[in-house]
Amino acid sequence: VGRRLGDVGEHAWIAALRRRVGRWTAGGRVVVGLGDDAAVVRPGRRPLLFTTDALVEDVHFRRAWAPPRVLGRRAFRVAASDVAAMGGRPLVALLAVEAPVRLPAADLDAFVSGVAGAARRAGARLVGGNLAAGPHLAAAVAVLGESPGRVVTRAGARPGDRVYVTGTVGGAGLAIRRLLAGRPARLPVPPDRSAAGVLLATVASAMIDVSDGLAQDAGHLARASGATVAVEAARVPVAPACRRALGPEALIFALTAGEDYELLLTVPAARERRLAALVPRLGCRLTRIGRVVGGAGRVRLVDPTGGTLGLPVAGFDHFVRRSRRSSRTS
Amino acid sequence: VGRRLGDVGEHAWIAALRRRVGRWTAGGRVVVGLGDDAAVVRPGRRPLLFTTDALVEDVHFRRAWAPPRVLGRRAFRVAASDVAAMGGRPLVALLAVEAPVRLPAADLDAFVSGVAGAARRAGARLVGGNLAAGPHLAAAVAVLGESPGRVVTRAGARPGDRVYVTGTVGGAGLAIRRLLAGRPARLPVPPDRSAAGVLLATVASAMIDVSDGLAQDAGHLARASGATVAVEAARVPVAPACRRALGPEALIFALTAGEDYELLLTVPAARERRLAALVPRLGCRLTRIGRVVGGAGRVRLVDPTGGTLGLPVAGFDHFVRRSRRSSRTS
Repeated sequence: VGRRLGDVGEHAWIAALRRRVGRWTAGGRVVVGLGDDAAVVRPGRRPLLFTTDALVEDVHFRRAWAPPRVLGRRAFRVAASDVAAMGGRPLVALLAVEAPVRLPAADLDAFVSGVAGAARRAGARLVGGNLAAGPHLAAAVAVLGESPGRVVTRAGARPGDRVYVTGTVGGAGLAIRRLLAGRPARLPVPPDRSAAGVLLATVASAMIDVSDGLAQDAGHLARASGATVAVEAARVPVAPACRRALGPEALIFALTAGEDYELLLTVPAARERRLAALVPRLGCRLTRIGRVVGGAGRVRLVDPTGGTLGLPVAGFDHFVRRSRRSSRTS
Repeated sequence: VGRRLGDVGEHAWIAALRRRVGRWTAGGRVVVGLGDDAAVVRPGRRPLLFTTDALVEDVHFRRAWAPPRVLGRRAFRVAASDVAAMGGRPLVALLAVEAPVRLPAADLDAFVSGVAGAARRAGARLVGGNLAAGPHLAAAVAVLGESPGRVVTRAGARPGDRVYVTGTVGGAGLAIRRLLAGRPARLPVPPDRSAAGVLLATVASAMIDVSDGLAQDAGHLARASGATVAVEAARVPVAPACRRALGPEALIFALTAGEDYELLLTVPAARERRLAALVPRLGCRLTRIGRVVGGAGRVRLVDPTGGTLGLPVAGFDHFVRRSRRSSRTS
C-alpha cells in the first residue's frame, strides 16, 4: 500500500517534492520556483490574467473515477481554461491541496505530477502551493497568465455578431453521468484551448469557456454584453457519443451538461474572413452555432425555421438542489 | 436565520456579489476585476510574487471562534504574509471557497467582505475566485504581489549575520490553545507586515514568515541557506500574555506554537546601521534574537552563557499525529 501522508508528514512530503521538481519550475519566466515563501516571476509588458478554479472530491469527481495523475491534469486544465477564454496563455500556477491524513503519499505525488505535467505541456510552470489536512481531497489551482494580444471579456458581443464554439459539447457530461451511475467511462480531461484562445482573441468580440453548460455560459456572455444569444439548434456540435447514447434528448443534454471546457465566442461579421484564415491553425473544430441579436441579455434556442424552442435554464449550480442532469424549461 | 446558500444558488449568490463589490476591485492596477473568466492586471516592471495559503475549518479554525468577517480577514493575511516575507506588497488576490450548502448566505457574504476589506487595507484588490459546495468551510487565497526593491529569499543567510524577528511570538498560539480548550479568547488576526517587509528587504540577507513556529521556520531558513541559526533564549520576544500564562514554559511554547505571522530575518553586520535607521518606520517592534553561525542547516537555542539548550523540533505539521502543542527535545 505504501506510506500514507500521516506517516510521512507535511514538511517531509514537501521537502521530498522539492527535491524532485526542479525541472518542473525551471525555465520560462520563473526566477524563484517552488520552495520559498512565494514564487518570483519576471514581469513582461503584456496584460496579466489571474484566475482560480477548484476540484472537490465527491462534488466534481470521485477518487475511483481516474488515477490521481489524471485528476491533477484535470485540476490544471479547468483553471487554465479561464485564461484561454480571455485570449491568454498560462505562465505559472499554484496548487492549494486539502488531503486526508490517510491518503497514500504516492497518490498525492501523482496528483501533483499531473498538475505540473499539464502546466508544463501548456508552456506554464507549477511554482508553489499549499498542503493542508482535510476530510477529503480538494484542490484549488490559481493560474497567472498573460495575453499576447487582445484581452477578450464576456462583455463585447453586439447584435449582428456570429456565435461560435470550439470542439463538441455533451461528451464530457455524458461520461460523468455514466460514472455517477457506476457504469464504466473515462473521466474526460478538459482540452487545452490556450493556443486556440490566443488566435480567436484576435477576432472575437466576446469569449467565455463552457464549464456550466453551453446554455448557461451563453447566458453569462449575453448578460455581460447586454444582448441576446440566439443558438440554432441544428448547428450545435453535439458529441457523436452523446448523440448515439441519448438520441432526441442529446441536444438539450449537451446544452446543459457542462464540463466541456470548450470556448464559446462571438465574432463581428466584418471579421469573418480573418476568422476563416485562422481556422486551420486552431488545432480543433470550430462551429458557427448562431448569432447575437438585440434584447436583454438572454439565450434563445431557435429551430431551422426561426421558431423559438423551449430552452432549459439549468446548468451546474453547486447550491441548488436540482440534479445537474435535470432541466427545466423556461 | 436568513437564507442559506442552498436557497440562493451559486450563480445568484455570485451575481449579487458582483453588484456589491465594484468598489473592492476599482483602482490600482486592475483592468478587469471580479466577474469575468479571469481578472486582468496591468503589468509593471517589478518582479512578481505569487503565493497561496489556505484555511480549513476544524483544521485551522472553528467557525464559532470568530465572526465570518474576521475569518476572511485572517485568510487574506496568512497568504499576504508570504509576499511580505519576500519583501513585496500584495497587488491582487483570488479566493477559492468551499462552503456547505446549509451555510447562511450572509455568513459567506461576511467572509468574502473580510477578505476584500483586508486586501483593500493592504493596498490590494480581491479580483476573483471560485465557489464550490463542500462538507465544510475552506478557503484558499492566492496573492499576486510585486517587489518594489530587492526580493529576499530564505536562502541568503551567511555566518556572521544577525537574526531578527518582528513583533512578539507565542500570543497567537496561546489564544488558539485557549480556544481549542473551549475557553474564551480572541482569535488573533495576523498582523499586516507588508510595509515592514518591504523596508526590511532593503537590508535582509534572508527572510521568512513565522507560521509554523519560530523554531521550525528558522530551520527552513537555515536549511535553505546552508547555515545554522543560533537563537539566544533570553532575547526571544515572548508575548507578555504568553509569559504570564505559561511562566517557565512560555519560551518553548512561543518557539513552537506558530500562527504568529511575524517576519524572521537575517541581516549582515555591515548593514546594521542601515537597519537601525529603518526601525522607526517599521510600524512594529524589531528584536535581535541571535546570529547565524557555520554548520549544516540547523537551529540551536543558546543560553546566556553560550551553552546549548534542548530545542523542540515540533511545529505545526498537518499530517503528523503529535499535537501541535506538544514538543519533543531533539
